[in-house]
Amino acid sequence: MKIAIVGIGLIGGSLALELRRTGIATRLMGVEANSRHASQALERKLVDEICELPDAIRKADLVVLAVPVNALLHLLPAVLDEADRQIVVEVGSTKEKILQAVANHPRRGRLVASHPMAGTEYSGPEAAVEKLFCGKNVVLCNIDESDPDAVEQVKKMYETLGCRLIYMDAASHDLHAAYVSHISHITSFALALTVLEKEKEEKAIFDLASGGFASTVRLAKSSPDTWIPIFQQNRHNVLDVLYEHIHQLKRIKQMLVDEDYEGFYKLIQEANAIRKIIH
Amino acid sequence: MKIAIVGIGLIGGSLALELRRTGIATRLMGVEANSRHASQALERKLVDEICELPDAIRKADLVVLAVPVNALLHLLPAVLDEADRQIVVEVGSTKEKILQAVANHPRRGRLVASHPMAGTEYSGPEAAVEKLFCGKNVVLCNIDESDPDAVEQVKKMYETLGCRLIYMDAASHDLHAAYVSHISHITSFALALTVLEKEKEEKAIFDLASGGFASTVRLAKSSPDTWIPIFQQNRHNVLDVLYEHIHQLKRIKQMLVDEDYEGFYKLIQEANAIRKIIH
Repeated sequence: MKIAIVGIGLIGGSLALELRRTGIATRLMGVEANSRHASQALERKLVDEICELPDAIRKADLVVLAVPVNALLHLLPAVLDEADRQIVVEVGSTKEKILQAVANHPRRGRLVASHPMAGTEYSGPEAAVEKLFCGKNVVLCNIDESDPDAVEQVKKMYETLGCRLIYMDAASHDLHAAYVSHISHITSFALALTVLEKEKEEKAIFDLASGGFASTVRLAKSSPDTWIPIFQQNRHNVLDVLYEHIHQLKRIKQMLVDEDYEGFYKLIQEANAIRKIIH
Repeated sequence: MKIAIVGIGLIGGSLALELRRTGIATRLMGVEANSRHASQALERKLVDEICELPDAIRKADLVVLAVPVNALLHLLPAVLDEADRQIVVEVGSTKEKILQAVANHPRRGRLVASHPMAGTEYSGPEAAVEKLFCGKNVVLCNIDESDPDAVEQVKKMYETLGCRLIYMDAASHDLHAAYVSHISHITSFALALTVLEKEKEEKAIFDLASGGFASTVRLAKSSPDTWIPIFQQNRHNVLDVLYEHIHQLKRIKQMLVDEDYEGFYKLIQEANAIRKIIH
């Protein structure tokens, strides 16, 4: 299958690697606005050629859109305008606003909305890695709005990459994503700011930072170009979770102020229930 | 060298494995109040025998104290009462209160206070792993209060385990530890509570939870028996960091409320500076 990848960053680039490795792609066309990223994508042989968008669509059987979700809002209707026989799959981290933007598009059926629950804190084509999607979950959203042949092809693609498929409507996706992905990034950004603010003595962080700190703070390396549009589009859900998270931190703070270690002990036991979920 | 390990949990057990592997220990005596843990320690051959405390001290050249920091407050003076020729090393996560408890002890010199910056979210002898300390930093505190021969032996031990040594006074240690270790646990506990509170629909967490979420929340599996005493002893510093962390989260919340995405973008860029520190 001839596949166009629009946006050859961490996700687009890693998909390119996997589509080639599994033999799904016989040819890969890349579309990339950032010329440095375009060169890197060619150097790393993530794609066979860099094309302009209309050219890439024309040559492709499948078009993968892997750009930040703000760019997706404008790109998606434009790509559907050009796509007739092609299948279009987008891999954005939000779904409601994205799908509203093409809800009444005459070619809405060609689009399959997906969110592979995979990534790292790095970005750009240099961050692309093999097997990023192996064993990961992929959410397919509102598939009743997509043409059955398009859904089948995209399902087959993700299954070949080793993914497990989950089905959800766009609103549920955005709500749950706020809880299990977006808030983690906000906590991590806030934690990094806290430590950078207070620990003027940088050497002490270097010396003392352990695996636990690295683990909770690593997402703070994530790019604002990726994340601001996600927070913007999922603002309502993210705010809900953020209020709750601040509330939980204040409960802990109050217990420390009151020296209520018995209450705090019980709270940690409650938090330990996350063991059932994260192995 | 004959070594007694008091408290054969994650840290004590992992130390036992390493002291054996590197040939530092010719015989290992274990002291363990929890009888199930004592059996597990023998089954896993972490120690050669389980002894009562006075017996273990009597037989040992080096006594390692790896119990929670509240137990350490009482245990430390009692162990020093019995130690004359022995070297005593404690591996607690706090230092000020611990060292105050033995500041005027006639055998204070036999004690070396250390904090290996290593661990996992698991506890008990079953959590003990090989090479936990390889390449990790170990803080030695207030070494001018320890006998030179004791400091030399403990330095040699940690260096043989592959650790890098850092020197700090107890007050500085507790301040920095609050920033780069203790607060990470609090954020993680609060994040787990947030998600567990709101996501009644547990299946959605299972399905959507990605590596990012797992990374920020994994410390929430940590035992309250280890952590409540740490928060209790380092309450003042932990509260300071917690106030700052809540402040940072409120800043982010306000920017989202105001839809100030430009300000939020800049904040993420600031947070990205953590890249310099955590590789």
